[in-house]
Amino acid sequence: MTTNPVVKIYIALVHPPVLSKKAEVICSAVTNLDIHDIAGAGKTYGVGEYFIVTTLPDQKVLVDKIIKHWTDGRGGDVNPDRREALRLVSMVDSIEDAVAKIQATVKEKVIVVATTAREDHVDVSFKELKAEMKNGGTYLLLFGTAWGLSDEVLVNSDRVLMPIQTTSGYNHLSVRSAVSIVLDRLIAQD
Amino acid sequence: MTTNPVVKIYIALVHPPVLSKKAEVICSAVTNLDIHDIAGAGKTYGVGEYFIVTTLPDQKVLVDKIIKHWTDGRGGDVNPDRREALRLVSMVDSIEDAVAKIQATVKEKVIVVATTAREDHVDVSFKELKAEMKNGGTYLLLFGTAWGLSDEVLVNSDRVLMPIQTTSGYNHLSVRSAVSIVLDRLIAQD
Repeated sequence: MTTNPVVKIYIALVHPPVLSKKAEVICSAVTNLDIHDIAGAGKTYGVGEYFIVTTLPDQKVLVDKIIKHWTDGRGGDVNPDRREALRLVSMVDSIEDAVAKIQATVKEKVIVVATTAREDHVDVSFKELKAEMKNGGTYLLLFGTAWGLSDEVLVNSDRVLMPIQTTSGYNHLSVRSAVSIVLDRLIAQD
Repeated sequence: MTTNPVVKIYIALVHPPVLSKKAEVICSAVTNLDIHDIAGAGKTYGVGEYFIVTTLPDQKVLVDKIIKHWTDGRGGDVNPDRREALRLVSMVDSIEDAVAKIQATVKEKVIVVATTAREDHVDVSFKELKAEMKNGGTYLLLFGTAWGLSDEVLVNSDRVLMPIQTTSGYNHLSVRSAVSIVLDRLIAQD
């Protein structure tokens, strides 16, 4: 008898490179509630680490201050559950740095999965990816802020996950909602 | 041949009566991003109306200002998708008022479903509720802010939906995440 293969899932919230409303490649600002909501969802679904990808020095100082308030400071004393969630969070300059950081720990290939609200570049459904994850492996799920991940990120990822489709014809979920739904679809028990 | 029965789903974000950290029944403050994220998720999943339940006069003025900025004001001109989502939102003083408002439109019983992160009072699973909804009907899903809906709300609802459970043993989802996941589980196609 063999033991069940273990899947390790990491997430990254990407600020550069993402698209602006005019489809230019930009670096967006970090939203405070993105840190908290996605850390809470990540901890609830057992993800290994939650990377915030940003290059702007001012943003780094701010994000670092917020994280430390909850992990080392008074925030965590008042709300230990939030401390636990925020301990998942770290900052990196690029998606490549997140991959390198994971690889240094797990010593196996990291399969990078981009998410998108558009149809182009999509090559895997939720059902297919969930089935694939049953075989174990290490995955990094990428989520884009602003108007979504740049084309370059989609092209360079190992997989591009289908959008969260509904029958309403309207699809404008916040990235906080999208992360929650994607984690639930891929990780929750049937 | 008969046509498929239609299910109509409404949501309410409850500010009173909810629990404080110390389990006292309180009226919590409205969070700006709760308006936007939940309206976006509601519109994406085709809900009929999104009620914000609050009694505090100051909060009402503020929420009304935010809604109008997007539905009638400049916000909607700049971002028509958000205008469409925010048109789902209305304010009511109580859960009973939301039920009465829905009933005036649909002329049938409104089945009130409370959600909770705790185990007590739970009487329906996601699978059961989804199967039930296939028969049509009108449902109002209640979501609690702060530390969740008061016991009185749970006891007086027609159904109490099981918590979003995962295997991590940690369950601290924001209400924005919880609404997104619940709508996806109940409404998205398999």
